[in-house]
Amino acid sequence: MSGSTQSSKSAEKVDVLLLGGQVLTLNNQRDTFNPGAVAIRGDHIAAVGPRIEIEARYESTQVLDYTGDIILPGLINAHTHAAMTCFRGLADDLPLAEWLNEYIFPAERHIDRDLVYWGTKLAIAEMLLSGTTTFCDMYLFADAVAQAATEAGMRAVIGEVLYDFPSTNYGPPENGLKFSEDLCLRWKADPLIQVAIQPHAIYTCSPELLVRCGELAARHEVRLIIHLAETWQEVKDCQARYGATPVGHLHRLGLLNSRLVADHGVALSPADLELMAQQRASVVHCPESNMKLASGIAPVVELLARGVNVGLGTDGCASNNDLDLLQEMDTTAKLHKVHHLDPTVLPAAVVLELATRGSARVLDLDQELGSLEPGKRADVIVIDCQQPHMIPMYNPCSHLVYVASGADVRTVLVNGRVVVRDRQVLTFEVEEAMAQVRQIARKLKAP
Amino acid sequence: MSGSTQSSKSAEKVDVLLLGGQVLTLNNQRDTFNPGAVAIRGDHIAAVGPRIEIEARYESTQVLDYTGDIILPGLINAHTHAAMTCFRGLADDLPLAEWLNEYIFPAERHIDRDLVYWGTKLAIAEMLLSGTTTFCDMYLFADAVAQAATEAGMRAVIGEVLYDFPSTNYGPPENGLKFSEDLCLRWKADPLIQVAIQPHAIYTCSPELLVRCGELAARHEVRLIIHLAETWQEVKDCQARYGATPVGHLHRLGLLNSRLVADHGVALSPADLELMAQQRASVVHCPESNMKLASGIAPVVELLARGVNVGLGTDGCASNNDLDLLQEMDTTAKLHKVHHLDPTVLPAAVVLELATRGSARVLDLDQELGSLEPGKRADVIVIDCQQPHMIPMYNPCSHLVYVASGADVRTVLVNGRVVVRDRQVLTFEVEEAMAQVRQIARKLKAP
Repeated sequence: MSGSTQSSKSAEKVDVLLLGGQVLTLNNQRDTFNPGAVAIRGDHIAAVGPRIEIEARYESTQVLDYTGDIILPGLINAHTHAAMTCFRGLADDLPLAEWLNEYIFPAERHIDRDLVYWGTKLAIAEMLLSGTTTFCDMYLFADAVAQAATEAGMRAVIGEVLYDFPSTNYGPPENGLKFSEDLCLRWKADPLIQVAIQPHAIYTCSPELLVRCGELAARHEVRLIIHLAETWQEVKDCQARYGATPVGHLHRLGLLNSRLVADHGVALSPADLELMAQQRASVVHCPESNMKLASGIAPVVELLARGVNVGLGTDGCASNNDLDLLQEMDTTAKLHKVHHLDPTVLPAAVVLELATRGSARVLDLDQELGSLEPGKRADVIVIDCQQPHMIPMYNPCSHLVYVASGADVRTVLVNGRVVVRDRQVLTFEVEEAMAQVRQIARKLKAP
Repeated sequence: MSGSTQSSKSAEKVDVLLLGGQVLTLNNQRDTFNPGAVAIRGDHIAAVGPRIEIEARYESTQVLDYTGDIILPGLINAHTHAAMTCFRGLADDLPLAEWLNEYIFPAERHIDRDLVYWGTKLAIAEMLLSGTTTFCDMYLFADAVAQAATEAGMRAVIGEVLYDFPSTNYGPPENGLKFSEDLCLRWKADPLIQVAIQPHAIYTCSPELLVRCGELAARHEVRLIIHLAETWQEVKDCQARYGATPVGHLHRLGLLNSRLVADHGVALSPADLELMAQQRASVVHCPESNMKLASGIAPVVELLARGVNVGLGTDGCASNNDLDLLQEMDTTAKLHKVHHLDPTVLPAAVVLELATRGSARVLDLDQELGSLEPGKRADVIVIDCQQPHMIPMYNPCSHLVYVASGADVRTVLVNGRVVVRDRQVLTFEVEEAMAQVRQIARKLKAP
């Protein structure tokens, strides 16, 4: 699987040469090369093209040969709560109020930096092994999330969850903005970490807090990310309290703009859709969580028709219960077909873009991520196509969306570094994270 | 992972000792043993119980130790067209008529015994590796399906698809019943193969053919299996042609009874539901196919509430596009929750039973399969719980439905024989099946 290329006088040196297989660039022309190759220098892509051309032009001491496999941009999980791996399967199939009040909130009372660090580390193992190279996380102890990600060599958009009540991390609510601003400053120059301002929801944050969050996000030129219109109950409550839909409420507060990322966006009226499109706000679609919690089906087809940026997320493990974006793509493609009773909506190629280019745009990372192009960051994954369920292969997009699962991911590079190779995480001890989370779970379950 | 137990004077000899892990028996009391064990003698289960008791009582030269893993009954795929692996990803995201008329039907003109044999062999590899131990197949050249299954040591319910037009297998329609009867006779005593009479659908089979199929099924005491009420268009057409719903049409023909298995059962009226329940007919739910083809959502919650037997199937690879029942369970649990806007419907334990006890009942195999009990056939699977996405483990049912995919299946026994061990198929050359289907696909794609 590995070796070094023949040295030749004219060849340029690169750090990694990835040989395919079909290379799906997902660039603007949607070029594919079969067989193709990717040359990587430092943290970025030096070249992508036909294998024969790339091999002739570049040489490397690290050549990874994936003949017959698919090479594509790393997947981007645009909404999760990584540390909720600790609550995976703790409670399912319950009415929302009972699930939250009797299981999730009591469990979350045990949250400390240690739980967040180890829960995130385990989540990172799961995500990297299933082809996700960037995740956008909303949780407490966001600095522990950033620490876990940088140690693992994974890319993350982090943000401390903000609301009107005290946090076990930063204490009284007034400290939350300061904590978030410190995050912005501390991680500003990091090659892997971005920060976002992340108020929890319109029903847990006062208008004043939301406005201050918006100011902070604008000052640091980062995304403002919020759970929005996740359920119709939220809409009803918002109407009663503020006389507006959640989208309308944010608009009145001056927060509905291209900086805003609405997680879920399930319960949107036609007027909300228009407003989102006009104001160039983004949506993260989390279909499996929305299905499992019975929240509803986000109007993704309608959002895309209006040109709204849509990314894909798994949400946390308490409501999914895994972090496998390849399976999430499958669900996305199928759910909207049956919802619209139209097999042509959300074809495979469109769904693949939601989890790559779409999520990158949502997170303001599309200049650097989402496609394989010279100059972009080298976040690249390789899908094993030598298994019975991947045979035959008429169309790689179809297999990625309708067949592949996370277990088919063979190798993963983030920022030019090989972080998973032949299904093994190379950057940290996964067994240690597993043992730590097992230990945390035993404590959570104890009375 | 393997060894032999200490010989002791009082120990009884068995052929295989499977040591867990959590053993989910899915017996009537839903006993679970943790740690548990299963003792297997010949083709059947000798004992299931706490590991310490089973180890004390039985000895074997073949001990498989899966400490920490989940052991459960093999999954039963109650509806598929296995050889359609050859068409996997050939055409997706198209209107139903275009998909059928421009891709599937032209491709199916190339069907011969060779395509069915190798396509089925590949499907068997995929199914065994993902924890399915029995599949119910409807296709042409059903004897080739049976041959592939017996060679692989897999259990199957086979049936030649029957309709009013000539078949590339048996020729003119009048030969179909004779061919089916010969199948019944030939495979009567086989330990792995059952036969069913399988008319394609009410819109491809005349009432006369359907009635004769029913007579044949009754004479040989086998299931009568038909695609029924797959789409609302089928209902509309049936109303126009016969003045009845598809269910009502079969009832008038005297065919709606406990022998009848309705594949899909999407487009059912309240009266149809009542009739199905009264007549004790069964339904096979194929949610991913129904979603991808935008057929609709079968009223599974309503069927179960009326006591109708419901099993789970993947349908063929042209409309899914894989054969992974663990992922199908996940989709089932989530789809009905969002459809009913109720997170309590189809909890994990119920969905797990659809793919085991439910499918077994549908196929009239529940005396032998569907649970781990002394005397039942030893069709058993082991799920690897040592991967990051399976950590922590509060509830095994939850993980099986919401987290595990086929790739988590470690070891599989069918009829007491170890057919997959540590993710390797032991009974045939999977590489050969892959190479053959790749070759067939090249021919299909050529003009």
